[in-house]
Amino acid sequence: MAMNANPVRGTRDFLPDEVKLRDKVQGIILDTYKQYGFERINTPIMEDIERLTQSDGGENLSLIFKILKRGQKLDLTKSDLTEDDLVDSGLRYDLTLPLSRYYANNRAKLPTPFKCIQIDKVFRAERPQKGRYREFFQCDIDIVGDDSVHAEQELIYVTTQALLNIGFKDFTVRINDRRILSDIIKCSGFKEEEIPSVSITFDKLDKVGMKGVEEELKEKGFDAAVVDKFVDLISKEDLLDLDNVGQFCADQEIVKNVQNVVRELTSLSEGRFSVIYDKSLVRGMGYYTGMVFEISAAGLNSSIAGGGRYDKMIGKFLNESVPAVGFSIGFERICEIIKDTNMVNLGEEKKLIFIFSEDQILANVVKKIEEFRKEGFIVTAQRKAKKFGKQLDMYADFGYNYMYVFGESEEPKPLSKK
Amino acid sequence: MAMNANPVRGTRDFLPDEVKLRDKVQGIILDTYKQYGFERINTPIMEDIERLTQSDGGENLSLIFKILKRGQKLDLTKSDLTEDDLVDSGLRYDLTLPLSRYYANNRAKLPTPFKCIQIDKVFRAERPQKGRYREFFQCDIDIVGDDSVHAEQELIYVTTQALLNIGFKDFTVRINDRRILSDIIKCSGFKEEEIPSVSITFDKLDKVGMKGVEEELKEKGFDAAVVDKFVDLISKEDLLDLDNVGQFCADQEIVKNVQNVVRELTSLSEGRFSVIYDKSLVRGMGYYTGMVFEISAAGLNSSIAGGGRYDKMIGKFLNESVPAVGFSIGFERICEIIKDTNMVNLGEEKKLIFIFSEDQILANVVKKIEEFRKEGFIVTAQRKAKKFGKQLDMYADFGYNYMYVFGESEEPKPLSKK
Repeated sequence: MAMNANPVRGTRDFLPDEVKLRDKVQGIILDTYKQYGFERINTPIMEDIERLTQSDGGENLSLIFKILKRGQKLDLTKSDLTEDDLVDSGLRYDLTLPLSRYYANNRAKLPTPFKCIQIDKVFRAERPQKGRYREFFQCDIDIVGDDSVHAEQELIYVTTQALLNIGFKDFTVRINDRRILSDIIKCSGFKEEEIPSVSITFDKLDKVGMKGVEEELKEKGFDAAVVDKFVDLISKEDLLDLDNVGQFCADQEIVKNVQNVVRELTSLSEGRFSVIYDKSLVRGMGYYTGMVFEISAAGLNSSIAGGGRYDKMIGKFLNESVPAVGFSIGFERICEIIKDTNMVNLGEEKKLIFIFSEDQILANVVKKIEEFRKEGFIVTAQRKAKKFGKQLDMYADFGYNYMYVFGESEEPKPLSKK
Repeated sequence: MAMNANPVRGTRDFLPDEVKLRDKVQGIILDTYKQYGFERINTPIMEDIERLTQSDGGENLSLIFKILKRGQKLDLTKSDLTEDDLVDSGLRYDLTLPLSRYYANNRAKLPTPFKCIQIDKVFRAERPQKGRYREFFQCDIDIVGDDSVHAEQELIYVTTQALLNIGFKDFTVRINDRRILSDIIKCSGFKEEEIPSVSITFDKLDKVGMKGVEEELKEKGFDAAVVDKFVDLISKEDLLDLDNVGQFCADQEIVKNVQNVVRELTSLSEGRFSVIYDKSLVRGMGYYTGMVFEISAAGLNSSIAGGGRYDKMIGKFLNESVPAVGFSIGFERICEIIKDTNMVNLGEEKKLIFIFSEDQILANVVKKIEEFRKEGFIVTAQRKAKKFGKQLDMYADFGYNYMYVFGESEEPKPLSKK
């Protein structure tokens, strides 16, 4: 019986035309980032399991693909086996943990601040569904070693330039600082250690509304008066314009930074995209420590890029803390939008099917082929098939737009689909 | 205590300059292959564990990284657990199995013959040593659906063009057909099922010599008279020139094909590389069914590329057999040679460090930066540091060759290392 030829659940095969589009989009992103002085690095897709599980990755930690120990390290005779006995590494679920480890490992050979690009695969054991895969690309830029708000500004600006260069228009950049929300949560009467739980519930605001947030917080068993106070404060906050953001409880230095970033990016956008303060933006990762941001495409709710400041992560690998901020484009998400909208033009290639016959001298055939290649043709050479018309039709179907029969003429002729 | 920042054993971090070189070399290979009408595909790095373990991958089958089952599929309470109970997928150890599955899965959407490129990561749990890694790149081209020797010819020719375009010279292409050796083995009196074992021993000829091969075969318990006959036949074979190859026992049609490929490629080489028949070439993979080939760089014994025909592999996924032939460049190996010899010139970039100060208007700063970018500069903008001289020195150290202080002049000035 034939073996199953489907790719592993949640992963995909890409046809040549899909790869062309994906490579082109990655090329635009990479070229944009390079122009702005970012440099590409590469890290392994495998990471030690301890590092992965201690990385504050939020719900992603439950989605890690784990790799079996090998040889004598794997002892299946042990009683009460747990997963820890079985695995010693796993596949990375994002590019931020690998970068943090990389920076700690290579710091002496890197400039300060270090501006880097990662375009690479990550892996999450998600329940597969449209637009959600188990093996997918992220396109990240990070600035390590700059604790000023200029780092956020630059990352957001450069990411918007990449999206504009691809062809995205009228997208919205949403900005928040986790600490503004934390301050309001504390002000309402929650305890310090309750902040993550309250934040996670509040993150659902756009899905369940304020009533839903209130209900979930009460279901979680928090004091009703405290929850009511929080709903009151955050609702008042909602009525404020940018100038008055964070009036209630928040640290005014932090508020000023958010205001500045929103204003300056609005000015730099020259009307090509919008920049807003979004008090409900939290983002799932546990490792963010300050400003967080997302970009959503025009007319779509879900985000196409997200990021934030994570000043504590690199410190886990070093005996000192190193400030860092990153922004990641969701490559699969933007590819779907690009495909649906025909946003990116792949350009016309000159593809030539070169026909020769068995009795012709190979050296002469190859010489002629190489001439056409020098003229910029992509050339596929094939012996003339018995069903010659069918042979040409097939190549026309696969995008070949020129044909040439060796010995019959000097120049290629146009070839078109039937 | 700080967490360990080393990458997983046998894997590597790449610094920006290394990535630049690797991306450039991959770009040359990809562009060459595309010119010849090959098209890039992408497949997942994860594959079902059954497919991996039933893939005739020779000793690579013992080097597979296996991925733990998830959720309810993983039952650690079962008695007499084996690895089969624990894993359902693994990381691919080469690109040939994924391509075979891919072709079977997508056949209706692909041309015949299908000429494809894969430049991607593969994984093997090798004992790490210089030049041998657990996570590494291969650059493959394959032709699927052509059973003629033209497919071998084209693959070998195009691979040599990629190596020439990178800057390799005077390399040697070695060609054999497994069936010639099989015929000689059978002629000597070995049984059909003993061919793989004898071939594996004979593959060590260049390491242990004919005496070593003879000893190992006898140690394996084969009949001494049969072993002596084999040594006699293969040694006689060794004295023959290309015209008389395979006089002893081999199928003359197969011999003629090898002779033709060697002659035609020698003619196409125009003296830039050599092409020889190598009777001892076997190659480790169990899936090869016919011609096999390798390329070794000038002055180096180990191979930088290898491939062969595998007419039975795709058939495992379909109810009919599909001919296929592939050639893979060992990307890590060629990168080491390129680094040691400075073979590839990365070219000079115009890298500008753009200095501004806190009190300048950001919109004006950005406008000026964008002007320089349009002129082709890679620009990194930084606020003026207190230790300005040190700041410039650092950027000079990291390859920045221009500097510009906003407000002080119109044009960038050259910047050089101290």
